[in-house]
Amino acid sequence: MTSGAYNPFKPAPSKTALQKIFPWTEAPLVASAPMRLISLAPLAVEVSKAGGLGFIGSGNDQSNLEETLKHALKLSVEAKLPIVGSKGETFLPIGVGFLNWGADLEYTLTLLKQYRPVAVWFFAPRSTEGLVEWTTKVRETTFGITKIWIQIGSVKEAVEVVKGCKPDALVVQGADAGGHGLNNGAGLISLLPEVIDTLETLVETRNIEQLPTIIAAGGIADGRGVAASLALGAEGVVMGTRYLAANEAQLSPGYRNEVLRASDGGQTTVRSSVYDTLRGTTEWPKEYGGRGVVNKSYHDSLSGMSLEENKKLYDEAVGKGDEGWGESGRLTTYAGTCVGLVKKVQGAGETTKEVRLEADAVLRRLKG
Amino acid sequence: MTSGAYNPFKPAPSKTALQKIFPWTEAPLVASAPMRLISLAPLAVEVSKAGGLGFIGSGNDQSNLEETLKHALKLSVEAKLPIVGSKGETFLPIGVGFLNWGADLEYTLTLLKQYRPVAVWFFAPRSTEGLVEWTTKVRETTFGITKIWIQIGSVKEAVEVVKGCKPDALVVQGADAGGHGLNNGAGLISLLPEVIDTLETLVETRNIEQLPTIIAAGGIADGRGVAASLALGAEGVVMGTRYLAANEAQLSPGYRNEVLRASDGGQTTVRSSVYDTLRGTTEWPKEYGGRGVVNKSYHDSLSGMSLEENKKLYDEAVGKGDEGWGESGRLTTYAGTCVGLVKKVQGAGETTKEVRLEADAVLRRLKG
Repeated sequence: MTSGAYNPFKPAPSKTALQKIFPWTEAPLVASAPMRLISLAPLAVEVSKAGGLGFIGSGNDQSNLEETLKHALKLSVEAKLPIVGSKGETFLPIGVGFLNWGADLEYTLTLLKQYRPVAVWFFAPRSTEGLVEWTTKVRETTFGITKIWIQIGSVKEAVEVVKGCKPDALVVQGADAGGHGLNNGAGLISLLPEVIDTLETLVETRNIEQLPTIIAAGGIADGRGVAASLALGAEGVVMGTRYLAANEAQLSPGYRNEVLRASDGGQTTVRSSVYDTLRGTTEWPKEYGGRGVVNKSYHDSLSGMSLEENKKLYDEAVGKGDEGWGESGRLTTYAGTCVGLVKKVQGAGETTKEVRLEADAVLRRLKG
Repeated sequence: MTSGAYNPFKPAPSKTALQKIFPWTEAPLVASAPMRLISLAPLAVEVSKAGGLGFIGSGNDQSNLEETLKHALKLSVEAKLPIVGSKGETFLPIGVGFLNWGADLEYTLTLLKQYRPVAVWFFAPRSTEGLVEWTTKVRETTFGITKIWIQIGSVKEAVEVVKGCKPDALVVQGADAGGHGLNNGAGLISLLPEVIDTLETLVETRNIEQLPTIIAAGGIADGRGVAASLALGAEGVVMGTRYLAANEAQLSPGYRNEVLRASDGGQTTVRSSVYDTLRGTTEWPKEYGGRGVVNKSYHDSLSGMSLEENKKLYDEAVGKGDEGWGESGRLTTYAGTCVGLVKKVQGAGETTKEVRLEADAVLRRLKG
């Protein structure tokens, strides 16, 4: 094979690599996304209990993070999840996600030192330099117990992040993802293989030592998406939208009902900055937009309604509670294009196990 | 299982279903897209020769179609491809693609009657009613020898088309596809499973008799994309962008070089109507746009350059020939987000076989 060429015949990485790092997990690794304000301790711990890896979404504001970590520790102990490693080191068997454009590094370090979650997930920094600082300091502070996951949405970002930060895992987010991601992007079907090929070329040319663990995100809602991601070269997956329907997700019934109702997400969701603007979350770097179900706020914005008027109507909708969501509502339903595959409410642990079993069944079917 | 619920444990459809219909093909079926002006007889026949199914792109203008079909027949005979079926019926072992918004039904029928390609591929009709007419008349004219493939890009379209036309195959096109597709869409990772689940619900509720064969398209450029598509539920795949680099593709070296150069297609390609407008192909129904590599025409359009001025510069670039393509060029390079996975020029037959072998290798690796 020539340098950088894709070789499907080479041996697969050990299937247990991730299970060595996160010993309570089962292959293929299913993680829950660190959805801001939605993914709190109950959701994260339920996913980890089921052999997955749950992430808390601490977002850009760490003011409630200590309380959430305490809660996660309590739930982990109750669930008899491992919190002491083979060398006597203590850890918390969940991860924590940060929006690096707004998160507070120094305060985060004090919490990581104390609670040592097994992973942090970085996303949307103002610069790669900032990300290098976060990565270096977290590694120093937690003695490597806390693995570094970094989310990217393009081949260019993948190269910058892997060269600069040497993350333990690279979360490759396709354009189908709900919530925030790059305004322009490719789906996993083309993004994932190209990221892997490009990084393999960097290994061959000795620009990097090795590939990080590749985790797929964006549009995955069941075992078929998991099996497809493995075929594309991922070692594990993340789901967000699917976990919006988990009992443990911290969200209003109005939001959840809209997730269950919406279908044909390629037509009925859109990536935009309109929802951010209405919600007052205006500090996102300009290259990111949030994918959500199309509603009246979006249509009115498209039709040229002033932001002032739209915001006024949005604020009125907030007062309506659960009725504020829906097609003719104005409250934001961040969700991925896979929203139409999410049809039932169940425990996050049940979802995690079910998806893993489905993926196994799909792979067995393909052998036949 | 409840009605319409996804059941990964149910038996897979016979792997040889497609091979019974197209007896020279091998599983998984790899088809080449009917790219307008680019996919002519040499490309289509090479793909069929290699155990795939090649499509001629007749587009919206059938003026050269008879000549192309004659050429395909000659090449098929030379290649000793089967042209007589088990019941003595004659056929042409390739397919023909139509852009139904502009194609001429009556003239097409006279050619289909004479040449009987094994498949037609319908896309982008002005209405579903029009598509029903095409489907009915083609079936009558070719006594069912010519199978009906219909391309859709949303769950809504899938339901309408399957109810109205009962196609033999449904080509499910994800948003990553190059060239024309719905302006808004989902990637295959979520679109394919939702289309299948929705159609299965229609079978259970007796709205349709059975599922058509499901073919995946959009962002697939190698065996990993094929294996992923099978995991998502497809029985075969179509590639377009990958075949732009085939020796037999009818395109300028400038176009091909730009396909080989471009990478990170989620960032460097865009779906837009700008390229159509400059090229004077303005009859597309408004819901479709063409994905191509971003170039100066696009940037100038974004920056507010008048169409008149942009068109003048485009026409000048046409005069430059191969130099007119490229990042700082103005000629259109329609390509999918997988453009960065296309790195070598080779025969279309070699590509077809290679991709099939890669898919097998990926599936074997996943068993391990």
